[in-house]
Amino acid sequence: MNMKDRGLVSLPAVHAAAERIRPHIIRTPLVRMTPSGFWLKAENLQPIGAFKIRGAFNALLSLGEEACARGVVAHSSGNHGQAVAYAARKLGVKAVIVMPLNSSPVKLAATKSWGAEVHLVEASQRAATCRKLAEERNLVIIEPFDSAAIMAGTGTMALEILEQRPDIRTVVAPVGGGGMIGGLSAALKLSNPSISVIGAEPELANDAQQSLRAGKIVGLTTEETGRTIADGLRVPQIGRLPWANIQAFVQNIVAVSENDIKSAVRRIAAETHLIAEPSGAVALAGAIALDLDPDTTVAILSGGNVEPGLYASILTSQA
Amino acid sequence: MNMKDRGLVSLPAVHAAAERIRPHIIRTPLVRMTPSGFWLKAENLQPIGAFKIRGAFNALLSLGEEACARGVVAHSSGNHGQAVAYAARKLGVKAVIVMPLNSSPVKLAATKSWGAEVHLVEASQRAATCRKLAEERNLVIIEPFDSAAIMAGTGTMALEILEQRPDIRTVVAPVGGGGMIGGLSAALKLSNPSISVIGAEPELANDAQQSLRAGKIVGLTTEETGRTIADGLRVPQIGRLPWANIQAFVQNIVAVSENDIKSAVRRIAAETHLIAEPSGAVALAGAIALDLDPDTTVAILSGGNVEPGLYASILTSQA
Repeated sequence: MNMKDRGLVSLPAVHAAAERIRPHIIRTPLVRMTPSGFWLKAENLQPIGAFKIRGAFNALLSLGEEACARGVVAHSSGNHGQAVAYAARKLGVKAVIVMPLNSSPVKLAATKSWGAEVHLVEASQRAATCRKLAEERNLVIIEPFDSAAIMAGTGTMALEILEQRPDIRTVVAPVGGGGMIGGLSAALKLSNPSISVIGAEPELANDAQQSLRAGKIVGLTTEETGRTIADGLRVPQIGRLPWANIQAFVQNIVAVSENDIKSAVRRIAAETHLIAEPSGAVALAGAIALDLDPDTTVAILSGGNVEPGLYASILTSQA
Repeated sequence: MNMKDRGLVSLPAVHAAAERIRPHIIRTPLVRMTPSGFWLKAENLQPIGAFKIRGAFNALLSLGEEACARGVVAHSSGNHGQAVAYAARKLGVKAVIVMPLNSSPVKLAATKSWGAEVHLVEASQRAATCRKLAEERNLVIIEPFDSAAIMAGTGTMALEILEQRPDIRTVVAPVGGGGMIGGLSAALKLSNPSISVIGAEPELANDAQQSLRAGKIVGLTTEETGRTIADGLRVPQIGRLPWANIQAFVQNIVAVSENDIKSAVRRIAAETHLIAEPSGAVALAGAIALDLDPDTTVAILSGGNVEPGLYASILTSQA
C-alpha cells in the first residue's frame, strides 16, 4: 500500500499548500524564551490568533468554484470555526459554523465578527448538526482535522521551522483531533528523518496517549475531556487520517497536568510577552515535563484566544 | 553648522549600529492588528522584552577595550537597566545599575537576574548617584537616552520598518527621554522624507509636547510624571541630543489619557495576542487618538515588561 492509500500526508501536498496559503497567512516567528531558551512557533500571531487559519485557507482554496458558490459549514470548539469564518469572508464564501454551548465567549464573538452564521449546540451534537446542515442547505463540510487538506495546511509550519532553525532536533505539538500533529509530523519527518516529533495533551484529555499505547484509536467522552482548561484540546478522539500519520511519524505523546498547563502560560508571558491560550501552552508544558534540550526544541504555541478574565486569573495564581 | 555639530543622528551611524548589533538582537516582526489593521513593531519580543537592547548593545559595542575592562554604570526606570545588564553579561562586562525605589518589581528582578549590581535610590537622585558611582569606581556611564550611540542603536528599528513595509506613511513612537524617537525619526526622515513621525506620551508626563509648543525643552517634576501608569515614560524632561532630533524630524506630539493607555493595552492583547506594558501601548493609543489610517501606520510597541498583577487588572477593567 503506498503512502497516499494509507492516508499519509505527502511533502508535495504540503509544498503546494504553502504556495496556496502564502498570501493569506503570517510566516510566524520562532520566538526564543529568555532565559529558559526554548523556541516557540508563535502561531498566536496569525490574524485569527491561531494556527487553524493554515488548514482553513488550504481547504477553502482547494474547493472548486461550484463548491464555493454553495457555501461551507464547519464544527469547532472555537479556533477552527474562527479560521473558516475568516477565510470564507476573505474569499467571499458563505460560512455556517456549529459551536458547542460551552465555547469560550471570546472565540464565539470573534467567529460572529467575521460574518459567519453561528449555531450553538451540545458538544456531543456538533458533528451530527454539521452533517444535517450540510445536507439541508447543500453546504460543503470543512472538517476540523480529519482531512488531507487541513493536515497539508497545518504541515506548512514544518517547512517554516526547518528554514528558520535547521539545527532543531525536536518539535513538540499539542494534540486535539490530531490534525496539526498529523500534518506537521509528516512534513518534518519526510524532510528530515532525524527530527523527533512529540505530541502533548492534557492528562484530562489523553486519548491520543492512550491510543498510541493501545495501538488503536481510543475515545473518551466529551464529559471527560470537557474537564481540561485547554478548551482547544477537548476533542474526545483523534481522527482516522491524523491517526495514520501519528502512528507513522510521532515518537511519543506526553500528558501534562492542569497546573503544568497554567504554569506554562505564565512562563510564556514572562519570558516572551506572548499571550498563550491554555491549549497553546500545552506543547511547552510537555517539553518542560520531558526535560528536553531548550536550544534544539521547538514547542508550537498554537493559539492565543483566551478570555481576558481567565487569562488574568492564570497570570495571578501561583498553583 | 553641519548635522553632526547640531547633534543630529546620521544614516551612516544607524547603518553601522545595525551591523554591530545584528548578532545580538531580534529583527522584530511588524504584527498586524486584526481587525483594526494597525501595524505594531513588536519590540516586546526582544530578549529582555524591550527596544532598549538596541541602544545598549550599540553603546557597549562602541566602547574600547580599556573602557570595557573598567565596567559600566547606568540609571534607568527599568528597561534600559535590564538592557545594559543583559548586554554587559553577554559581552563579559561588569555592570552597575541605579534604579528608582518605585521601579516595577518585574523589571528589578530581571535586572538582577542578569548579574548586575543594583542600587535603589529616590527617582530624583538617579542621575547624581550614577555620576557618583562612575567617579568613585571608575565606571563608564551608559546614558539612557541623551547619547548618540543610544539613538543610533534605536534608529535601527527604522531600517527594519522601511524594509518590512516600504509603503508605510506614518510611524508613531512613545516619548520618554526622547532617545527612541530621536534616532528613529532621524533614520526614517533621512531615508524617506515623505514619512511622518509622530511622538506619543501620557498627558500626565507631556513634557515633550510642552517643549515642542514652547520651542525649548520644558521639564516636569518626577512627582508629576510619577503619576502615569506608563512607568517607562516618567522621565521628567527630554535630553538635549534627542531634542535636536525631535525639532528636526518629528511632526507632532500627541498626549493620551491614562484610560486611552489601558484601552490600548487591551486592544493589543485582543487583536495580536502580544503583551504590552503600559508604556508600550502609548504609541498605539496616540495613533487611535489621531485617527490615523491603520493600513499605513506603524505604532512602536516598545516593551512588554509589566507586573502580572497590574496587567491582569488592566485586562479585566472596563474603564
